[in-house]
Amino acid sequence: MTRLTVEYDGTPFAGWARQPSGEPSVQGELERALATLLRREVQLTVAGRTDRGVHAWGQIASYPGEPARLQGLNALLPPEIAVLACDPAPDGFDARHDAVSRTYCYRILARRTPGAFEQRRALWWPRRVDTAALQACAAALRGRHDFTAFTPSGSGHRHFGRTVVDARWEAHGDELQFWIEADSFLRHMNRVLIGTMLEVAGGRRPVQGFTALLDGRPRSQAGVTAPAHALYLASVRYPDTAPSPSGSAGATTTTILPIP
Amino acid sequence: MTRLTVEYDGTPFAGWARQPSGEPSVQGELERALATLLRREVQLTVAGRTDRGVHAWGQIASYPGEPARLQGLNALLPPEIAVLACDPAPDGFDARHDAVSRTYCYRILARRTPGAFEQRRALWWPRRVDTAALQACAAALRGRHDFTAFTPSGSGHRHFGRTVVDARWEAHGDELQFWIEADSFLRHMNRVLIGTMLEVAGGRRPVQGFTALLDGRPRSQAGVTAPAHALYLASVRYPDTAPSPSGSAGATTTTILPIP
Repeated sequence: MTRLTVEYDGTPFAGWARQPSGEPSVQGELERALATLLRREVQLTVAGRTDRGVHAWGQIASYPGEPARLQGLNALLPPEIAVLACDPAPDGFDARHDAVSRTYCYRILARRTPGAFEQRRALWWPRRVDTAALQACAAALRGRHDFTAFTPSGSGHRHFGRTVVDARWEAHGDELQFWIEADSFLRHMNRVLIGTMLEVAGGRRPVQGFTALLDGRPRSQAGVTAPAHALYLASVRYPDTAPSPSGSAGATTTTILPIP
Repeated sequence: MTRLTVEYDGTPFAGWARQPSGEPSVQGELERALATLLRREVQLTVAGRTDRGVHAWGQIASYPGEPARLQGLNALLPPEIAVLACDPAPDGFDARHDAVSRTYCYRILARRTPGAFEQRRALWWPRRVDTAALQACAAALRGRHDFTAFTPSGSGHRHFGRTVVDARWEAHGDELQFWIEADSFLRHMNRVLIGTMLEVAGGRRPVQGFTALLDGRPRSQAGVTAPAHALYLASVRYPDTAPSPSGSAGATTTTILPIP
């Protein structure tokens, strides 16, 4: 088996999943490049099927057989997809079923003026933000809850209980980031969580009005679905391994290089 | 007088300067938006005339007369230009002549794999990088030097002496950033400095082969001109003021918001 770690800018793609229409997708581009290099058909299994416009810093995918050469693979891919690693994995490794948790990040540019570099990469939010209320919402999310209110009614899910391992808001300059790690996510769950928490941040819904939704209320009681283009699949955790790298907007170490 | 602080993604523009051809430029877009709002012609003076493809986090421009409304201005601009501030300035303020120094940053993605988010924003450099040698070059840059070797021979400059207030390399995860503050810069100076320092970083030129260039050697002795798309005008310093904001990729404070 082979395990891929993939970074992508979701802007030009219909999402992760290969489209019957042939519209460009991350899966489609990767499978085509792998088929060219390995001279056979390849079917990828993925940890998180991201929607149209959603980005990834550390998506994980797997396929049966030998790794392809990393340099060759990146040379065959569009510039919005970068394979960070292509390594042998244990027999039977499955990127989806073996994943213990997924971590997502939602980026909000919380300032009066728009960002020239963030048009398709963060949500510009020039309104009032009560960060203490946001953090209270994040604290309430931890643990096991029924997330029926946070996914479209016809989403096809049969079970709505999910376990949130960690959830928190961070401030990086004038950017607010929402980080959430859970065993798995319902369709649009992160985006409805964000849309509802921004109502709380603006004083239009009390914190208790948010936490009350976590015991299986109908979708109609939660807020709007926030845009996809500010959401990033940051990393995936597997048993006995550290999470996959969390990408450039995650916490990085700043070093002033030594002067020799 | 009015003073503007401007952030822009240089990708879609011919550079700062208005083009006789009418090709989109940052100056052209700003002057058009200001003319619409103020109902009169506006001519901008700018601290740093950036070339095609070069970005800015904290460009400063000025014009005679009253400020325009910030929200209205941003609404009239393409999404790759954001005015961060539009404030009254003292009589006679001139963004170009009053500037004491300009600070630029050059971003290098120093890793084996390309970056899905950095195609037009950083230089991908998968080769060997001797960071100690880079830092030695930066240290040698500080002070007053003759930069003839670092600008095209026909650039039209009459004086080649420039004073470098500060120069250093920083590592942020797998990104290397070169920061340089100087009284002013010759045409292409930053890009030739980078091209030459990368030769040193790869072991193809000794550090002394770099420092020897700083006393007025001909252009032919320095290295290639590095690409424009990784260069950012970070900030401009004026007398008795702090430098203008240095944008999102500068050092920001990370805060875990308090849990109430």
